[in-house]
Amino acid sequence: MMRVVLIGYGNLGKHLAQALAANEQVSLLQICTSQVIGDSQLQGVERIQQPDQLKPADLYLMAIADDHIASRSQALPNLDGLVAHCSGSTNIQALCSNNRAGVFYPLQTFSKKSSPIWEEIPICIEATNRADLHLLQQLALAISPKVFNVSSEQRLHLHLAAVLVNNFGNHLMHMAQEQLGQAQLSYQLLLPLMQETLDKIKRMPPVQAQTGPAVRGDKKTMEQHLALLQAEEKELYSLFSKLIKQSHDHEL
Amino acid sequence: MMRVVLIGYGNLGKHLAQALAANEQVSLLQICTSQVIGDSQLQGVERIQQPDQLKPADLYLMAIADDHIASRSQALPNLDGLVAHCSGSTNIQALCSNNRAGVFYPLQTFSKKSSPIWEEIPICIEATNRADLHLLQQLALAISPKVFNVSSEQRLHLHLAAVLVNNFGNHLMHMAQEQLGQAQLSYQLLLPLMQETLDKIKRMPPVQAQTGPAVRGDKKTMEQHLALLQAEEKELYSLFSKLIKQSHDHEL
Repeated sequence: MMRVVLIGYGNLGKHLAQALAANEQVSLLQICTSQVIGDSQLQGVERIQQPDQLKPADLYLMAIADDHIASRSQALPNLDGLVAHCSGSTNIQALCSNNRAGVFYPLQTFSKKSSPIWEEIPICIEATNRADLHLLQQLALAISPKVFNVSSEQRLHLHLAAVLVNNFGNHLMHMAQEQLGQAQLSYQLLLPLMQETLDKIKRMPPVQAQTGPAVRGDKKTMEQHLALLQAEEKELYSLFSKLIKQSHDHEL
Repeated sequence: MMRVVLIGYGNLGKHLAQALAANEQVSLLQICTSQVIGDSQLQGVERIQQPDQLKPADLYLMAIADDHIASRSQALPNLDGLVAHCSGSTNIQALCSNNRAGVFYPLQTFSKKSSPIWEEIPICIEATNRADLHLLQQLALAISPKVFNVSSEQRLHLHLAAVLVNNFGNHLMHMAQEQLGQAQLSYQLLLPLMQETLDKIKRMPPVQAQTGPAVRGDKKTMEQHLALLQAEEKELYSLFSKLIKQSHDHEL
């Protein structure tokens, strides 16, 4: 049974704690956090507030804000176990070299209200030696069949890609919702289109799936759209239209 | 049985022709197009090339490019039936007033390779009188349960919203794919995240679902991302980050 200690109890930390506590291959020994743990599923897990109270474990998972990874890993005592962070955009070298370093990055957007389906979440792992990589792989496979070896450099590209489709895609949905609100139309109207947009890329590269006024060079429609948008949204619209045209012409 | 003539045989026209020919409540009399019709499912449908060969029908559906709607509706003879276009961004008034005018707009992205699931596609209809609206409603309900009365003004907002989530969202996927290509990673890695991005908006408004470096104001990560992007993509990234922050601050 793998002994794990969780450092951090934010959004990701809470979901990880639940997944680890419920897993038969894992013994979640402690959670190190200044926050109160209200979760009844975690009653058997010791809560500590300071790193000098850390118990011996195979793995110390740091589920904390990117900015704090370097400093908080430096504040850890010398440990026998592996110390891994869970950040998409942080290099493995940000972890203090006093301890063996690794990365355990679940590629998903986590929110308070909803339970992640762990079996579907890709987990990207990285370590500096084979034994540590094996340990991370073992933990990752215990919670998801989708485990990938991803270097820090690759992970940054991946994290950027995730920001593009998730954060920026989400903002487009917000803008779309505002347009529909202005027209007193339900957002439900767009759901089938959004699902098809996503399903299409399982069948063909997005650049080939592209349709609409920008790719057609339909200036009249683009001008009508621009008239409905605010100043900076106009800029975004024009920039997208330009980039779409460029990608399409490049593809021909 | 409703007698329908289809004018135009492009991407949408082909899919509409199939749906109408297969429908028991519809008799698809003719398709007016200069293109050859290779589809064996349409063998019983007469192909004509000129509008003076049009047969009497209840409805003439113009599935043609937005730019040609005005001129081609002007070239139609005086007809007993209703003339409806299928465009998201074209006002009903673009249709020549010689004939009764309507709009029949299926809100979906159509591609050659895939068959649309008509039962899931919202169809937006508009007419200038109750009888015509009823006719369009009858046809729409024959192919989808999701039928909405949408005015030309509303439809333009809806079309813009569709361009935002579909065309622009699709371009973000293209950019994401390029990032993953640069890192020799499979695009499959992103699919669960994209599905969750979409599923989330069924549970909460997108502005509340927002996560990531822009909303956190995490400048270090944003700079790392910018370093991986080309000139105009950098601009897009910065603009999105600014708009996301604004929306978030506005929401608080």
